[in-house]
Amino acid sequence: MELLRERIRKEGRHLGNGILKVDGFINHQVDPTLMDACGRELARRFAHVGATKVLTAEISGIAPALTTAFHLGLPVVYARKTRPITMPDQVFLTLAPSHTKGRMVELIVSPEYLASGERILIIDDFLATGATILGLVRLAQAAGAQVVGIGTLIEKTFEGGRAALSHLGVPIESLVVITAMEGERIVFAGE
Amino acid sequence: MELLRERIRKEGRHLGNGILKVDGFINHQVDPTLMDACGRELARRFAHVGATKVLTAEISGIAPALTTAFHLGLPVVYARKTRPITMPDQVFLTLAPSHTKGRMVELIVSPEYLASGERILIIDDFLATGATILGLVRLAQAAGAQVVGIGTLIEKTFEGGRAALSHLGVPIESLVVITAMEGERIVFAGE
Repeated sequence: MELLRERIRKEGRHLGNGILKVDGFINHQVDPTLMDACGRELARRFAHVGATKVLTAEISGIAPALTTAFHLGLPVVYARKTRPITMPDQVFLTLAPSHTKGRMVELIVSPEYLASGERILIIDDFLATGATILGLVRLAQAAGAQVVGIGTLIEKTFEGGRAALSHLGVPIESLVVITAMEGERIVFAGE
Repeated sequence: MELLRERIRKEGRHLGNGILKVDGFINHQVDPTLMDACGRELARRFAHVGATKVLTAEISGIAPALTTAFHLGLPVVYARKTRPITMPDQVFLTLAPSHTKGRMVELIVSPEYLASGERILIIDDFLATGATILGLVRLAQAAGAQVVGIGTLIEKTFEGGRAALSHLGVPIESLVVITAMEGERIVFAGE
């Protein structure tokens, strides 16, 4: 997706260790017009999978998942990392390593909003190692729901996430694919 | 706003101690179409204040702030509760009590995205005690920015937030106003 790639080219910054800083338009400050365009494109790519719900993880998955769900006309559930007091005692919970926090975090979904038989489209900001997304897959499976697609804004192929998810046999779409980051240079697929 | 009030009437639940559960359409599962309508209405109410940026707090402020910012054509910044490694060492940080977590949380904004001279519209899901919003006001003031309006989806008048914010002298708008919750009964303003 040209629009997002150009934005990353202009404002993205490689901080070292495979960390791409996109805090100016995705992760801390958000450009809602860009995020709407990304959601529209992800919705177009997944229009055929028959999803009944979008699932993401707080925090930075919320914006792209919300706009994707909006364009698909579906509800979106974001897995919580801490259990709020409004949640029932019995929950679906799994652990996933957080790339940017350097520790394991909990991913928690209330059974009220993830039911057996649902067809789940997982949306997140990054496809890196795939660890967070695999956590979301486990939550969906624990609920008896079926994952029917995985979509992200930015894929970093050198972290192997696509291979880690391939056994699921579902379509995986990323709007921008980055194959390497060397010093200040961000290399996009096909360049 | 009729649409949101009816949704609360149907699906909102008073859990006691002034906690209103809206996890089915705002706080855990989100209805993107409803959230878009709320953002459109908040944008309409604040069209005249000349805001240059929308500011909110993760996590549940993100959805209404994103849609409001979209309809105003502005960027949105969400204050983080933990500092990600992508953030510079020098940040704006304040403490605010979390209603649903029962403890103090940090609210952190990078100086990269909150600058002197900005005109800040604060958007959040709830106006309860006003403590989180006052935290966001402090962050804006620390940056030398000016708060020009405060908008929320749901105001609980019995927690006094509007009074706590009145010294700011800025317009405060809530889409739905709840004056009392007694047992299972949720009382809306004007009823």
